[in-house]
Amino acid sequence: MTRASSTYVIESADGGILAPAGFSASGVAAGIKRPGRLDVCVIDAAAPVAAAAVFTRNTMAAAPVSWSRQAVSDGTLRAWVVNAGNANACTGATGEADARAMAEQTARLLGCAPQDVGVASTGVIGVPMPMPTVGAGIEAAIAALGSKREHATQAAAAIMTTDTFAKESACRVTVDGTSFAVGGIAKGSGMIMPDMATMLAFLTTDAPLDAEACRAALTLAAGRTFNRITVDGDTSTNDTAALMASGAATIVDGAPITVAHPAFDAVAAAVTHVCAELARMIVRDGEGATKLVSVVVRGAASAHDAEAAARTIANSPLVKTALFGGDANWGRVAMALGNSGADVDPDRVDIVFAGIPTCTGGTAVAFDEDAAALALSADEIELLVDLHLGEFEATVLTCDLTYEYVRINGAYRT
Amino acid sequence: MTRASSTYVIESADGGILAPAGFSASGVAAGIKRPGRLDVCVIDAAAPVAAAAVFTRNTMAAAPVSWSRQAVSDGTLRAWVVNAGNANACTGATGEADARAMAEQTARLLGCAPQDVGVASTGVIGVPMPMPTVGAGIEAAIAALGSKREHATQAAAAIMTTDTFAKESACRVTVDGTSFAVGGIAKGSGMIMPDMATMLAFLTTDAPLDAEACRAALTLAAGRTFNRITVDGDTSTNDTAALMASGAATIVDGAPITVAHPAFDAVAAAVTHVCAELARMIVRDGEGATKLVSVVVRGAASAHDAEAAARTIANSPLVKTALFGGDANWGRVAMALGNSGADVDPDRVDIVFAGIPTCTGGTAVAFDEDAAALALSADEIELLVDLHLGEFEATVLTCDLTYEYVRINGAYRT
Repeated sequence: MTRASSTYVIESADGGILAPAGFSASGVAAGIKRPGRLDVCVIDAAAPVAAAAVFTRNTMAAAPVSWSRQAVSDGTLRAWVVNAGNANACTGATGEADARAMAEQTARLLGCAPQDVGVASTGVIGVPMPMPTVGAGIEAAIAALGSKREHATQAAAAIMTTDTFAKESACRVTVDGTSFAVGGIAKGSGMIMPDMATMLAFLTTDAPLDAEACRAALTLAAGRTFNRITVDGDTSTNDTAALMASGAATIVDGAPITVAHPAFDAVAAAVTHVCAELARMIVRDGEGATKLVSVVVRGAASAHDAEAAARTIANSPLVKTALFGGDANWGRVAMALGNSGADVDPDRVDIVFAGIPTCTGGTAVAFDEDAAALALSADEIELLVDLHLGEFEATVLTCDLTYEYVRINGAYRT
Repeated sequence: MTRASSTYVIESADGGILAPAGFSASGVAAGIKRPGRLDVCVIDAAAPVAAAAVFTRNTMAAAPVSWSRQAVSDGTLRAWVVNAGNANACTGATGEADARAMAEQTARLLGCAPQDVGVASTGVIGVPMPMPTVGAGIEAAIAALGSKREHATQAAAAIMTTDTFAKESACRVTVDGTSFAVGGIAKGSGMIMPDMATMLAFLTTDAPLDAEACRAALTLAAGRTFNRITVDGDTSTNDTAALMASGAATIVDGAPITVAHPAFDAVAAAVTHVCAELARMIVRDGEGATKLVSVVVRGAASAHDAEAAARTIANSPLVKTALFGGDANWGRVAMALGNSGADVDPDRVDIVFAGIPTCTGGTAVAFDEDAAALALSADEIELLVDLHLGEFEATVLTCDLTYEYVRINGAYRT
């Protein structure tokens, strides 16, 4: 079966999560984090709308993940309530009750059903939620809801933990003479790894998606972006990426956008665009990272091999410390490749650091160490491996492993 | 089928790899490493004897691994020639020829067939072997062979790379009124991980093992020791653990020890004893490590689950940095557990840091943070996880992740 797909144009836009029409947001300081730091965020679509979310596969999934998984299962949500500073993970029955209470309070104040409210939490694991503080924060956040630029900014700030900058992205898509927007915010800088990279991300669009199109667009986008980044190979208990579609934009034919609609590809591309920008910011902000590294594996015998090889290289502490040291240590890349399980012919492997061939046909190539050191001192690097066995390719974004990573994580909780 | 197994006593012994009778060894400074550091080692059994070896599963296995795999395939070897400073890995056809040349030269000087000589190399990857230097080293090492305490010490030193101390172990076993010895040396402090942990280890015994018993004893011992340690989750291209049995000790009944012999269990236990000591030294010397950590998972529903859970926890950078920080951060342990793929009931998990319960039945237990910090400041710690789902248990040794790890690996090659 073939399906018509319209030509579209995607342009970056300002406005973050409020770039699309039909949403309000807020971020307030409740006191869950250090005093004065924003830590409770609400995103409101004003009425139940088409919604989708993907979650961590960690079997110790946190209470808010359990709550939100069932809340979004009918394909609609009205709002998300999010807190930073406490993950409400490994908190047992109390944690489940606390997540539900957050949804119930938000629903009561907004005037909707608790099942229309998604809940997400991020922060320390294993500590019961300070519910009076959280409750006061939710009340303040709902009172503060608005649709100005500053509201989007505050929402982005309120979901941060060890992040060093807020992560916002938005774009505008023109398709078949109409236009709609996609916006998003994200947090994440540690516990980042493939298979629902550890992070929270909330996206909005005013495109009139039905629930299935919403889910399909998010799933496609997450698979190509958030699931292709890694900071430390650890996957958190709280990962959540979510999309709500307000339908406030109208397209020419007036019909809802289904997965069969000619504009669906434009929607999926725009959601992927925003997710890719947010994913890139997350890796860029990897705990202690000094470099953003694209690990590209091409010439693999299968898609699985390409991805396994790229992920294993991107997760290797020895590769990541070499990148920190500005060392074109292709031997460690070869070692990681050999551990990946991918089909490899050792005599055909090429390894290129930042444009500099270091290994061709499995053996060393003489290269100028000074030129390599200079190229590797850039803050964005491509590490390319060509297996010369087939047509498959995969890219995983990673960062270097630094003293600062050890400092941040050796002293996070205490 | 039941099998008789004799009662035995194992006692630690001095002498390292030369504790068993029938071997000579040496370590010399050839100049592959920095001038003056020992870097070529030969271990000689004086005649072809029963031998076994296990190797890395990395598909980019180095040339000496390919050579030694076939050399030992008939169950006999006379000698090992080992160099440090260059791994002869990712060196293509030249590397294969160099490994063979090392065996051929050693065989010529000892007066045996090249197939009776195992070759092992460790050091930088992807650089051709400096063969004139290596050849001179082999000649000197064979001229220096001897059976005194100092020869064992020199052999242990000559296989070191980033190791901060030489690793030797030996024991004496008494069984059925006779006694024999097992000795060994090892190197390794980075690229250490399960599935043939990255390392070299050479063991000797004077027990009269046949080839099958030699292989069985080594395989059992490696599975319980070297394959249960991890420093950074990376597996090298050169891992080799080997055992030679000189037969110089005679046991009461005069028969060779087969796997069915009543003394076989004593042999396997003694080989395991030496491997366990060497494995422990390797983790203790993990690059930059300040703590030796035993991750014990018990109450698992299967052996596979117990091992997967212990390995995932032991490899998590977030757990390892928390251990460095002396932080009883059981939430990160729960996170890693949830990523391990093991069956887990989140409401039944207990987590105990250095004897201090921090999580019981999946939720936090109040504990004295000062007492925990004190307990975690010890240089040997047990991290215990009880899943309360079954009878299976596994232990993986690991170390903490420190600034020093980043320093060593950020500046290793350059």
